[in-house]
Amino acid sequence: MEETRTLSTPLVGVIMGSASDLEKVTAAFECLDSFRVPYEAAVVSAHRTPELVRAYAESAERRGLRVIIAAAGLAAALPGALAALVDIPVLGLPLSGGPVNGVDALLSMTDMPPGVPVGSVGIDSARNAALLAVRIVGLDDLRIRRELSQARKQAAAQVADKVRVLRDKGIPVWEPEAGGD
Amino acid sequence: MEETRTLSTPLVGVIMGSASDLEKVTAAFECLDSFRVPYEAAVVSAHRTPELVRAYAESAERRGLRVIIAAAGLAAALPGALAALVDIPVLGLPLSGGPVNGVDALLSMTDMPPGVPVGSVGIDSARNAALLAVRIVGLDDLRIRRELSQARKQAAAQVADKVRVLRDKGIPVWEPEAGGD
Amino acid sequence: MEETRTLSTPLVGVIMGSASDLEKVTAAFECLDSFRVPYEAAVVSAHRTPELVRAYAESAERRGLRVIIAAAGLAAALPGALAALVDIPVLGLPLSGGPVNGVDALLSMTDMPPGVPVGSVGIDSARNAALLAVRIVGLDDLRIRRELSQARKQAAAQVADKVRVLRDKGIPVWEPEAGGD
Amino acid sequence: MEETRTLSTPLVGVIMGSASDLEKVTAAFECLDSFRVPYEAAVVSAHRTPELVRAYAESAERRGLRVIIAAAGLAAALPGALAALVDIPVLGLPLSGGPVNGVDALLSMTDMPPGVPVGSVGIDSARNAALLAVRIVGLDDLRIRRELSQARKQAAAQVADKVRVLRDKGIPVWEPEAGGD
Amino acid sequence: MEETRTLSTPLVGVIMGSASDLEKVTAAFECLDSFRVPYEAAVVSAHRTPELVRAYAESAERRGLRVIIAAAGLAAALPGALAALVDIPVLGLPLSGGPVNGVDALLSMTDMPPGVPVGSVGIDSARNAALLAVRIVGLDDLRIRRELSQARKQAAAQVADKVRVLRDKGIPVWEPEAGGD
Amino acid sequence: MEETRTLSTPLVGVIMGSASDLEKVTAAFECLDSFRVPYEAAVVSAHRTPELVRAYAESAERRGLRVIIAAAGLAAALPGALAALVDIPVLGLPLSGGPVNGVDALLSMTDMPPGVPVGSVGIDSARNAALLAVRIVGLDDLRIRRELSQARKQAAAQVADKVRVLRDKGIPVWEPEAGGD
Amino acid sequence: MEETRTLSTPLVGVIMGSASDLEKVTAAFECLDSFRVPYEAAVVSAHRTPELVRAYAESAERRGLRVIIAAAGLAAALPGALAALVDIPVLGLPLSGGPVNGVDALLSMTDMPPGVPVGSVGIDSARNAALLAVRIVGLDDLRIRRELSQARKQAAAQVADKVRVLRDKGIPVWEPEAGGD
Amino acid sequence: MEETRTLSTPLVGVIMGSASDLEKVTAAFECLDSFRVPYEAAVVSAHRTPELVRAYAESAERRGLRVIIAAAGLAAALPGALAALVDIPVLGLPLSGGPVNGVDALLSMTDMPPGVPVGSVGIDSARNAALLAVRIVGLDDLRIRRELSQARKQAAAQVADKVRVLRDKGIPVWEPEAGGD
Repeated sequence: MEETRTLSTPLVGVIMGSASDLEKVTAAFECLDSFRVPYEAAVVSAHRTPELVRAYAESAERRGLRVIIAAAGLAAALPGALAALVDIPVLGLPLSGGPVNGVDALLSMTDMPPGVPVGSVGIDSARNAALLAVRIVGLDDLRIRRELSQARKQAAAQVADKVRVLRDKGIPVWEPEAGGD
Repeated sequence: MEETRTLSTPLVGVIMGSASDLEKVTAAFECLDSFRVPYEAAVVSAHRTPELVRAYAESAERRGLRVIIAAAGLAAALPGALAALVDIPVLGLPLSGGPVNGVDALLSMTDMPPGVPVGSVGIDSARNAALLAVRIVGLDDLRIRRELSQARKQAAAQVADKVRVLRDKGIPVWEPEAGGD
Repeated sequence: MEETRTLSTPLVGVIMGSASDLEKVTAAFECLDSFRVPYEAAVVSAHRTPELVRAYAESAERRGLRVIIAAAGLAAALPGALAALVDIPVLGLPLSGGPVNGVDALLSMTDMPPGVPVGSVGIDSARNAALLAVRIVGLDDLRIRRELSQARKQAAAQVADKVRVLRDKGIPVWEPEAGGD
Repeated sequence: MEETRTLSTPLVGVIMGSASDLEKVTAAFECLDSFRVPYEAAVVSAHRTPELVRAYAESAERRGLRVIIAAAGLAAALPGALAALVDIPVLGLPLSGGPVNGVDALLSMTDMPPGVPVGSVGIDSARNAALLAVRIVGLDDLRIRRELSQARKQAAAQVADKVRVLRDKGIPVWEPEAGGD
Repeated sequence: MEETRTLSTPLVGVIMGSASDLEKVTAAFECLDSFRVPYEAAVVSAHRTPELVRAYAESAERRGLRVIIAAAGLAAALPGALAALVDIPVLGLPLSGGPVNGVDALLSMTDMPPGVPVGSVGIDSARNAALLAVRIVGLDDLRIRRELSQARKQAAAQVADKVRVLRDKGIPVWEPEAGGD
Repeated sequence: MEETRTLSTPLVGVIMGSASDLEKVTAAFECLDSFRVPYEAAVVSAHRTPELVRAYAESAERRGLRVIIAAAGLAAALPGALAALVDIPVLGLPLSGGPVNGVDALLSMTDMPPGVPVGSVGIDSARNAALLAVRIVGLDDLRIRRELSQARKQAAAQVADKVRVLRDKGIPVWEPEAGGD
Repeated sequence: MEETRTLSTPLVGVIMGSASDLEKVTAAFECLDSFRVPYEAAVVSAHRTPELVRAYAESAERRGLRVIIAAAGLAAALPGALAALVDIPVLGLPLSGGPVNGVDALLSMTDMPPGVPVGSVGIDSARNAALLAVRIVGLDDLRIRRELSQARKQAAAQVADKVRVLRDKGIPVWEPEAGGD
Repeated sequence: MEETRTLSTPLVGVIMGSASDLEKVTAAFECLDSFRVPYEAAVVSAHRTPELVRAYAESAERRGLRVIIAAAGLAAALPGALAALVDIPVLGLPLSGGPVNGVDALLSMTDMPPGVPVGSVGIDSARNAALLAVRIVGLDDLRIRRELSQARKQAAAQVADKVRVLRDKGIPVWEPEAGGD
């Protein structure tokens, strides 16, 4: 992880309800690092440390955060608890586990009363949560925007590349025509 | 509703996230009234009024409450938010509505982290939520206990009575033998 | 609806797959109007007008859009199709209907491959989708931020007010202590 | 396990439908032990030993039990069968297993007819079932209440502590400000 | 309804947990009547009148019953409670209603421990429950068996007949060739 | 409906398990009529008239059918029963109704053993079932292919047209740029 | 397995759609053996060998079968296909596997049209399927009935016995009072 | 794999969203090879390479493809994206994985708007997807049709053969009578 990270004010807060969720959230840190978006992490629990939730929310905007990613499984109260206390966007990252493989967390996060918006990505989609945060942060940052655009193009190229796996197995493969679209 | 109610210190708190839930909760008030258990109601929202949740929780034990019934639908964060702040029992009353007819609320209420216990009754089972509160309050109140026992016996008698509906339609009906169990 | 709206460059794009979804999306327009955030609407279908989707996506950033809200039901391909083509944030608004009441749309929107982030609000939660867009737009707009903060406080006040409904029915009601919390 | 346990009259009954459920229930015993709440265990099956269910229920109150925790999976008839026969609170502990990972047990326990209240905790949440029982028993026991309060504070401290795991990995971490909250 | 019915010893017992289930069960009585299989009805509740369940079960075989149909919704404990107490076949008739439209009742009825067999028909399939009972009773009754066979043939003829509905609307219709199959 | 229809050999067979399904299937007839693809309808039940199923299947190819659409709800055995008896493509049309709104029918139709292929469209998607049949029939019919292509273009035009609904309500609307893709 | 088995005419037919289901069905054979009820097994597939299904059904009654147990997973068409062709009782044994762990098979088996009754036991409950067949066969066989009754009593005794496991771990255990019940 | 394959113009296109899906799709290639139906494979992603999707679709008919099989998991947008751009039949192959084991992919594929038909086989049923494609291609190819018919008969024979497994274990087995159907 790069030095620049600690030198800057964090723009993205990544909070999780339990340190044991760390592994599922790591891809978010990697994505934020790859776009050189400064962030901070925190472990706060909607149920066990409601005061920390409040302290975090109350200082978030003052400290310059622009997006909060809240990762949680099961009842997944954390994203909503934060969204209720701040005016910056809160993204929910539902974690798998539990009786219905994270669908309960996904429903809990999104079943919010009017006035408490949470934007949830897919179950365990830490990278997409971070990428959505990067898109928000990038609205006013040309470097980030350029890198987002490059990343999209690279992803497309990688897909096209992967066709080699098929060709290597002797499977007849379609080739897009030169100059094609 | 009887006068005794307001004369006594409430023993049961019935809270709901929205006044629009009132109709679904009414059966709980009726049940508490029928056992002459003093109660209080409150409208507090885990998301929109977290300070009220805290204020309610902090004063609950001091004011003499012995059980809290928290009714909520959808993400249903209220029971867990309270259970995290008090040391008296919290019962969850999941309300129907939403994409999966209240199963989301039921899962949200019960999917709690260890250390934050919520005892949930069935979806829209306001009467059972109240009855469970009455059983808890009745642990040290002989009058209540006696009435609970009578109520159970009356319920049994009513079931047996209902067989008349069938007989009136000319359906051949089984009669328990006299002296039978 | 106010005149200011058409005078400004739209900052939020609200697109839907079918004009028949309009009624379910209306609350989003109302919310954007109430915060005086200029927006535009469009009807484009991921399946029936993929060229329009592309044309919309390609011009979105150039035209100054900062957030896209994509409403869709059933297979709900629209949010992902757009998210794949732009670098600004895309919010998904799953619509009810279909065999599992919109849970299919919610899963379709969020089950995205890495690199294609969609932030989904709850099923039919048009107001929350708009509010999340307003929070994003408001990151650099003090007026909006102030109004968001006021709206949150009003929502809290309204909840507290609603307790009157209970009191009017003669239900004993908890009163937060003066100066409380 | 401590000696005091067998010296006291049990206040909590923990019953399960099969001795093979023992492992999933063990956390309940540990929790009750940690609060020094005397308890007893029993294996009775709603289907295979209905007479034992009745015998247990009929003697429960006479023997001084104040709460019954009934653990069961699949059709999970045990909690309801007991709740129908006693006037003390019955808590349901749904166990995982079966075609829908315990959601069937959770629904079976809570889908009770009016008059037969069961308060269910989450699937496999043995510790929370015990903790809810401790809260009920603690309503009239200052020592227990004090220890419940301490346990809640320790849980909060542990969460805050866990942030060290992140820091050790070089992840930038948010620090609550001194005097925070 | 025919006289023969009350003159004979009932061979099929149709029990339901609540008289309010009567309407959903009526098709079973009609089917039993149409095959002139003597039956009896009863209202007994697994939870509210466990003694009646036992009394019913204990006398069932002695009184000559050969099959019991137990109709129940929600937690649907009745079929299992009976199956645990008798040695004659028990058929479950799950009733719709509740959060998952009777799927909870279907799972509750069939999720039985080994040794307690319940054979469940479809949700609200009262006619099929009765027909399965008639097949069991008919194992030793040539008249019933002959009538069952006729009923199957009539059902086939009716399906073939229904094609007229299509023809009347001008829809081109396939005609099985004479002597076909 | 046009005369040409009865003059031609049917190319598509539309079968349903019950004449009561007719209304849900009508859109398929309309679609086939609009493409002037000759078809035939039949009512055959996998369970009540297995001989008709066999007779239908055995004559299908001989009579010149090229596709079979089998509509069915609930257990939905019909598509699989036919697919097992013919070598032409069988399309499944799952019908709503039943405890899980047709998801049971959709799963039943597609959960086939290897060797018995059924291609299922969406629940109640009669028009799409017919359209898929038209695509298959059109593989060797230039007129049909041309009309399919026109229909796709018209659908796109209609979507674009629908934006007028929004404009009429005073909602600001995005206009694709002239010459735009 | 005992000799008597092959000497007698089979009374119970156990059919499965694939020999690979054998392991999941074995408990049914063991149960039938333990009650010395003669049976036969068959592998017939509703989809791949519909003629065998018909041949089996047509000879079943003639050969003296009194009950058919049909085991099947996924689309699980076998029980219904048989029930449509015979007049003796057909029991369904849904097998796990597939996208929803056998719930699809359970629904497929029970979602039958009126007139085609299948009595389904729980998912993978081979022993209960056999036991239900034994109860049916035992209606006219005193030996079997006596053994069924003994088996029920032994099951109760075993449950009571199992409490030893708890006692051995030092867990305080409830003892039913002598002369109890 | 046979030489003929590369010598012929592909008639079936098998596309997948990611090369990592290859293993789940392999059975489709094997099936197409076994019927000597020339095919081609491609890796194109609805989200990451929408241009490739368009290029593929636009050239598909010109290049002589008669059927497209689109394999996809999760949001599974690929089949619909293609079906919207071509006039030849598109078959969907939903892949397992994700929070609900592929049921989300199955619903996403089939929940199409009218005018965009996708015929979906079962989850992970690659062989059936290919077989359905072979049936379509075989409509005008007598060799293929003959081989399809032989394959069906072999499948039936194999089922009948499998009964040997049971016989070898000493399980009494039903033998279809000679000359039987």
